[in-house]
Amino acid sequence: MEEQRENIETDICVVGAGPVGLFAVFEAGLLKMRCQLIDALPQVGGQLSEIYPHKPIYDIPGYPQILGQELVDRLMEQIAPFRPGFTLGERVETINRNDDGSLTLMTNEHSTINCKVLVIAGGLGCFEPRKPAIDGLTEFEGKGVAYLVRNPEVFRDRNVVLAGGGDSALDWTIFLADIAAKVTLVHRGDTFRGAPDSAEKVFALAKGGKIDLLLQAHVSALHGDGRLQELSILTPQSPVARIAADHFIPLFGLTPKLGPIAEWGLAITQSAIPVKPEDYSTNLDAVYAIGDINTYPGKLKLILCGFHEAALAMQSAFKYIYPAEKLNFKYTTVYGINTF
Amino acid sequence: MEEQRENIETDICVVGAGPVGLFAVFEAGLLKMRCQLIDALPQVGGQLSEIYPHKPIYDIPGYPQILGQELVDRLMEQIAPFRPGFTLGERVETINRNDDGSLTLMTNEHSTINCKVLVIAGGLGCFEPRKPAIDGLTEFEGKGVAYLVRNPEVFRDRNVVLAGGGDSALDWTIFLADIAAKVTLVHRGDTFRGAPDSAEKVFALAKGGKIDLLLQAHVSALHGDGRLQELSILTPQSPVARIAADHFIPLFGLTPKLGPIAEWGLAITQSAIPVKPEDYSTNLDAVYAIGDINTYPGKLKLILCGFHEAALAMQSAFKYIYPAEKLNFKYTTVYGINTF
Repeated sequence: MEEQRENIETDICVVGAGPVGLFAVFEAGLLKMRCQLIDALPQVGGQLSEIYPHKPIYDIPGYPQILGQELVDRLMEQIAPFRPGFTLGERVETINRNDDGSLTLMTNEHSTINCKVLVIAGGLGCFEPRKPAIDGLTEFEGKGVAYLVRNPEVFRDRNVVLAGGGDSALDWTIFLADIAAKVTLVHRGDTFRGAPDSAEKVFALAKGGKIDLLLQAHVSALHGDGRLQELSILTPQSPVARIAADHFIPLFGLTPKLGPIAEWGLAITQSAIPVKPEDYSTNLDAVYAIGDINTYPGKLKLILCGFHEAALAMQSAFKYIYPAEKLNFKYTTVYGINTF
Repeated sequence: MEEQRENIETDICVVGAGPVGLFAVFEAGLLKMRCQLIDALPQVGGQLSEIYPHKPIYDIPGYPQILGQELVDRLMEQIAPFRPGFTLGERVETINRNDDGSLTLMTNEHSTINCKVLVIAGGLGCFEPRKPAIDGLTEFEGKGVAYLVRNPEVFRDRNVVLAGGGDSALDWTIFLADIAAKVTLVHRGDTFRGAPDSAEKVFALAKGGKIDLLLQAHVSALHGDGRLQELSILTPQSPVARIAADHFIPLFGLTPKLGPIAEWGLAITQSAIPVKPEDYSTNLDAVYAIGDINTYPGKLKLILCGFHEAALAMQSAFKYIYPAEKLNFKYTTVYGINTF
């Protein structure tokens, strides 16, 4: 860790070392720009390494199937010639714009990174689940309460209660109906915001007795001795009912958790950073946002879209850093890759 | 071939079976839309199979290196579950819009394809080189005259003359200077339109005696007995000089060769089809253009960008075909792929 406290000088600082942040290093490198990657996690790979290292992904173009960690490993191999720097296990604490337009970032471990361009590739890691006001909720986190389904196998043959009315709640209810011993979906309204065909499926599962569907209801308290055992539920029929539950999964969306970057004047919509679709630049000079964290008309939160965004953003970054130079676009097939 | 003359019914007709057209089948398949691929070439893969099947590509995300044909093979494996139809070795001859908005395409082999959406993924195969007016030019095509450098090794230790003033002429002059026995660049002007640093390199190569640079000059005629042997060149200094040449590569850009699609009201700029960046739709209803053939602000002619374009275009196509259905966007990591 000691050497990370040095003052790092680089062209581009990439916040977020997930697949899209990693690939940005490659696209920057083709244009002879150096990168430093910062991630709060102690390892590279972002969600791929954190959430599904051993799950197959099917929609990476050219890979009929690839495991999350395998994709991370291949990307690391691909960017190795451009020798990026890594500041891992640290969070950006402050950002300052210098007189010459360059940026200085400082982390919670006092690493200082000076860069010309900042690329925010924080993915969903920059978001946190919206936590409903329920007695005992945080007490049972990791002891029955989860805000995210990382590994559905955890719920096999268990008694699971989900709460929410959007696509996540519907999708996971449908998915877990086949896996869990018992699934209950609790929703405050009586119609769903999610996809109509998902809502239909949920109603059909309830009708068929495959799940319990509690509408106009909400979870008011959690109970258990060390681990979650019961939920208090308010419904129009019975003001306070207690039901048994091994797991409670409240799915009320995500809220951004961007820390100093948000306080620094970056435009942020409800759940993403709006960017210009021609180069994925944000409202701030020399600041780009790529991958799951950005939004623009047509946006899809796919890794393959983040790769494209990285390519266009790095071309734009080159023009920003070297306004006088004409960008000489080269195909790797003809020229190979020239490293530093 | 007999069964291709059937009347094919499909959701989406993809013209061009290069990597981007192939990947469109995958993205369409995830949304349960069927595809028929049409290509004038007798095999799939487009440029990858035609021009560089055995050359490594370095900028496919997740592949530090992959051969052109290998990428085609992996894409074919990836789309196999969605069982696309193939109409290969045929050209689209006519396109008609039916009363219900659907489209009917007919090929030169009388295959008929009825589809709801047309995706043009024709790549550079839809363009042809601009041919300068030079006596004997077409006569020596394939006998010394080439409009494209497919395999630079062809020119090793040969006497090569290039003509043009843009990036292609500059880039290939620089590249071939290391390979060919002798390189001459003939240019009508005395400044270049290409990248300034490439122009500088070309001037430096000329100064160092590594290449011959003939400015304010043009090639007026080609000569040879069966194969190219000599060129007539007009320069301000000597009205007609003859120089020896094994190869002549005129690089004056490309012009679109879209046949019936162009005559059908499709907007075409000088060298591409302009599209909306949010879904890569063209000026015509239900017609999309993806990959090297399209243009929009920020466009990069990269395979990885075409993959992204395919994903967004297919989402848009789904909304076009099923306007009443809410698109239920699913991650393959959670749900896998559901085939037909």
